Amino acid sequence: MSLSELIKSFQCQKILKSNPQTKSVVLLGQISKSNDAIITIEKSHFVTPDESYDVASSVEQTLEINHNDIYYWSNSILKQDLEENPGAKLNLIYPATETHIRKYGEQPHHYVVETPQMYKDYAVPYIESMKGDRIKWVYNILFEGKESETFVHHDKDLQTGFVLLPDMKWDTINLDTLYLCCIVNRTDISSVRDLNESHVQWLIDLQQRLRKLTFEKYSVEADQLRIFAHYHPSYYHFHLHIVNIKHPGLGNGIAVGKAILLDDIIENIQLAGDYYQKKNIGFLLGENHGLWQIEGYRKSHEERQ
Amino acid sequence: MSLSELIKSFQCQKILKSNPQTKSVVLLGQISKSNDAIITIEKSHFVTPDESYDVASSVEQTLEINHNDIYYWSNSILKQDLEENPGAKLNLIYPATETHIRKYGEQPHHYVVETPQMYKDYAVPYIESMKGDRIKWVYNILFEGKESETFVHHDKDLQTGFVLLPDMKWDTINLDTLYLCCIVNRTDISSVRDLNESHVQWLIDLQQRLRKLTFEKYSVEADQLRIFAHYHPSYYHFHLHIVNIKHPGLGNGIAVGKAILLDDIIENIQLAGDYYQKKNIGFLLGENHGLWQIEGYRKSHEERQ
Repeated sequence: MSLSELIKSFQCQKILKSNPQTKSVVLLGQISKSNDAIITIEKSHFVTPDESYDVASSVEQTLEINHNDIYYWSNSILKQDLEENPGAKLNLIYPATETHIRKYGEQPHHYVVETPQMYKDYAVPYIESMKGDRIKWVYNILFEGKESETFVHHDKDLQTGFVLLPDMKWDTINLDTLYLCCIVNRTDISSVRDLNESHVQWLIDLQQRLRKLTFEKYSVEADQLRIFAHYHPSYYHFHLHIVNIKHPGLGNGIAVGKAILLDDIIENIQLAGDYYQKKNIGFLLGENHGLWQIEGYRKSHEERQ
Repeated sequence: MSLSELIKSFQCQKILKSNPQTKSVVLLGQISKSNDAIITIEKSHFVTPDESYDVASSVEQTLEINHNDIYYWSNSILKQDLEENPGAKLNLIYPATETHIRKYGEQPHHYVVETPQMYKDYAVPYIESMKGDRIKWVYNILFEGKESETFVHHDKDLQTGFVLLPDMKWDTINLDTLYLCCIVNRTDISSVRDLNESHVQWLIDLQQRLRKLTFEKYSVEADQLRIFAHYHPSYYHFHLHIVNIKHPGLGNGIAVGKAILLDDIIENIQLAGDYYQKKNIGFLLGENHGLWQIEGYRKSHEERQ
């Protein structure tokens, strides 16, 4: 079935999330009887290519709500175009697993300070369990040519190489929200916890190349980018986020307690080679996350409160 | 003229602001030759009245961008209805004054990596120039009882004491957006750059007390809080931000490249007493900021690009 047909068959059962700030909804439903699906719809940002905006042609209709003195407010209908000016970005996960449903559901979060001991005792086995088939899609990109038509760059060297490609969060149109993802080829780094002094020069070179490639492809300068990793990441194969600094908010995605600047990673390891092995790392953990489900991990957190 | 007619006559001259997170733009233009006008357009949130959403009828068309394994992403055209389901909210200010225009204006930002040398040569004199009368309002709070009716706590000890009070960004009602500010009494710390091992135990105790006080007053648990400093801060007298982790959006305020977790500050200094004296610190700097106005500072940044 094509995506359009899949969407037409989607029967919504529950609104998992609704965010009035970002104008987005996450819907849980079914496409066939036995398979769950998750649809995320997020309104698109305005396309303003040339420092100007043709309001009269973009706003098709207006209905005034009220006015007072020099202030007027109204509701409007906007012109849309599928290729140049879409109304929304729609993402589908199908079939969706329990892990997906948990990840997208509303859940209480906790600021957890993970000690090296908590990492060793509980996170390491958890991380191992999250490999294999669960990151098959990553290996599809790296080694099977999946999505390769969108690659900004592909260096196939197995030790130092990487793929640079548009993140699926990005609409690929609006440069203000430029969001690229760099997935490294090497498969031996699950997260920042695995990084040590043997990786420093490689990380420095990598950052340099990512900035250069992004500039060459999109004309976005190095000092217009935030380059960072997540801890914990959403999948345990080392990757970096390359995001326009104008992107004002990605929920938790660029926040302290989730994002770590690559510049800081490099310099911290330069300061102490085992920085990320001995460091407590504070981050936001949702109750639906697999780590929170591990009793020992949760108890260690509670004892430290 | 009706609002629709006013909008039709609007000639856009400049995009004052463009926010991809909230999907909104602020436009400066003219309606008649002598009068400026400001139009704000913000996409509307999805209308989901009954815990369900009829995707098939809401999404009129879909154009797939790509798919990989179980993940699909696309751009879409949404159904709109002026009364029930508008595409956007449009506000007009007409005629707009200079004050309006400045208020809505935006500045370019840069991701700047400040070296200890840049700090010493340019930031230190700048910081000195930003003291005195410019932070009189801080001393009014600490020593003159200003805003004291709102204080959550006041410890008057000149070395270890502090004021804990609601930040002016907080409505003081919605606990999900709880935002407190802790301003310390001691006047010898301008920013994290001044922190060293002599401050570690004090910072540990301070964090402990802030968590306890916040819980006692608002019943918000310690692991529901992000406690952090800003670099550069908006005023050069050491203070901390205490924010509910549920706070949905603070723009740059909680982002890496601006916010630094107090937990990280403490542990980094424990690792190396002079961590914040020798560390390069990456942060977002707006062109209207005093530091960007300093030629030497700006040049040092450009040379490092």
